[in-house]
Amino acid sequence: MTNITKQTNSSEQCEGECSTCATTEDCSDQRKREYNEEQKLKLQLSRIKHKIAIISGKGGVGKSTVTANLAMAFAMQGHKNKVGILDADIHGPCIPKMLGLKGKTLVGGPGGLLFPVTANLGIKVVSMDFLLPNDEAPVVWRGPLKMRAIQQFLSDVSWGELDYLFIDLPPGTGDEPLSVAHLIPDLDGVVIVTMPSEVSQAVVKKAISFARQIGVPIIGVVENMSGFVCPDCGAHLDIFKKGGGKKISEDLSVPYLGSIPIDPNICNDSDNGLTFVAGNKNTAANKAFQDIIKKINQFLTSEK
Amino acid sequence: MTNITKQTNSSEQCEGECSTCATTEDCSDQRKREYNEEQKLKLQLSRIKHKIAIISGKGGVGKSTVTANLAMAFAMQGHKNKVGILDADIHGPCIPKMLGLKGKTLVGGPGGLLFPVTANLGIKVVSMDFLLPNDEAPVVWRGPLKMRAIQQFLSDVSWGELDYLFIDLPPGTGDEPLSVAHLIPDLDGVVIVTMPSEVSQAVVKKAISFARQIGVPIIGVVENMSGFVCPDCGAHLDIFKKGGGKKISEDLSVPYLGSIPIDPNICNDSDNGLTFVAGNKNTAANKAFQDIIKKINQFLTSEK
Repeated sequence: MTNITKQTNSSEQCEGECSTCATTEDCSDQRKREYNEEQKLKLQLSRIKHKIAIISGKGGVGKSTVTANLAMAFAMQGHKNKVGILDADIHGPCIPKMLGLKGKTLVGGPGGLLFPVTANLGIKVVSMDFLLPNDEAPVVWRGPLKMRAIQQFLSDVSWGELDYLFIDLPPGTGDEPLSVAHLIPDLDGVVIVTMPSEVSQAVVKKAISFARQIGVPIIGVVENMSGFVCPDCGAHLDIFKKGGGKKISEDLSVPYLGSIPIDPNICNDSDNGLTFVAGNKNTAANKAFQDIIKKINQFLTSEK
Repeated sequence: MTNITKQTNSSEQCEGECSTCATTEDCSDQRKREYNEEQKLKLQLSRIKHKIAIISGKGGVGKSTVTANLAMAFAMQGHKNKVGILDADIHGPCIPKMLGLKGKTLVGGPGGLLFPVTANLGIKVVSMDFLLPNDEAPVVWRGPLKMRAIQQFLSDVSWGELDYLFIDLPPGTGDEPLSVAHLIPDLDGVVIVTMPSEVSQAVVKKAISFARQIGVPIIGVVENMSGFVCPDCGAHLDIFKKGGGKKISEDLSVPYLGSIPIDPNICNDSDNGLTFVAGNKNTAANKAFQDIIKKINQFLTSEK
């Protein structure tokens, strides 16, 4: 990134550092605007201790459910008001509905920054959903506009001091995850969510290779919708099979974080804006979430 | 689209129609290349009677499963060798696995065209998966490259004469569905797949608005994973709730095509490369597929 000044030294070489440039006040170069944006982004990110992205190969594996529940579980463990969620799914933002924030909007604060919407336990949330007039409104955007939106969600929002920022990414290995990796060079790592079906496994391998290719650490793999126990008769039924996530983690040598069994209350709670982990204390699914959180914590601690 | 010629009449106005231009043989204009590509695409599409795209707001609702089963069901009803599937999910192509075509590749034929891979009953399939070295290889592409790939899948493939081409699109309302709508102006319509959960419904509304905004007819809504009957005790369990698809179709005045109940054999068959509708004759899920096909047929017949 370089910066040249308007008139006084336009022929001189721009040194790319506006903060030490003598003529920065008169400079109207496009690069100065970029420099300022970069500084704003850096400042925001420097106040967030840990940044964790949640990715998957295939859609519908429960990325947003896992993100919302991880955020709530961390907030419950002594990080009240210190957890944020960036919903980077521009076309299908689900986080607001899952946290009971439907109908809320982002409001402006001092210095042109937007305030995130706040959920239970002070979880700060930013989502495209807060900018849309209603549920039906689609966001018909190609890649470059989506990158720009994600950048603004990071740099133009008053996130404040956070211990954890969870970033819920849409499925696939295209514009949105590339943008997040580019914008957050110090991402702690990615949590990869999959379903046990073989079809889903084939795609999740791509997500693992993707993270490796772009040099982002892999915190581990979570298998969601893993087996089902009939609440009427107690029969164990593997609706989408079971064990695929563990197999992948072994095959590709990535850590395995755990399996979350199917529990109809997870869907009910998400639909009702409640996070499953905040209730449902003695369930297998809640225990699974707690184990996963423990492993993520171990990863984050071992990083230092 | 216009076309100017190289030297002979570079100052004259290009009339945009290379086929009647006297100097087209000497023309090296970029627009001539575009004209040729457009003609090739038109020719391919003119040989396909019906083009139907399968879309959804959210991922993981079973778009690819529905696509594969619709294609097979149509092939079984007197359209052997006359059905095609374009797997337009560049990042997470699932169709080959579901049709037992893993490991196959596209091979070249005369005139520089590629031959599609052929599944049971002569279903012709083109997918990014056939071009990748292995399951782990991710396609780390932004929008413009994806558009180009989809265009080539349509114009550079020897589809031949088809009665039906089903296009399996990735979730969302971004580059891929926009590209397909742009490349296939005479798309018969879209089938919109959803899950019954409210979170999924919120996103599927966006897909309906999207189709309306870009002027593509809506064939109807399919609710997948709608309720579950415990095979051990017969208890009716609504794992992801039930009835959401019908409610949306009423709320937004679009046709309702039917509900496909959860059946573990659907997942098993997909993983084993078998299409569920080809077996499992006396199941509720198969009956649901047959009803949906009847309604799609009615739509296609009423179009004329």
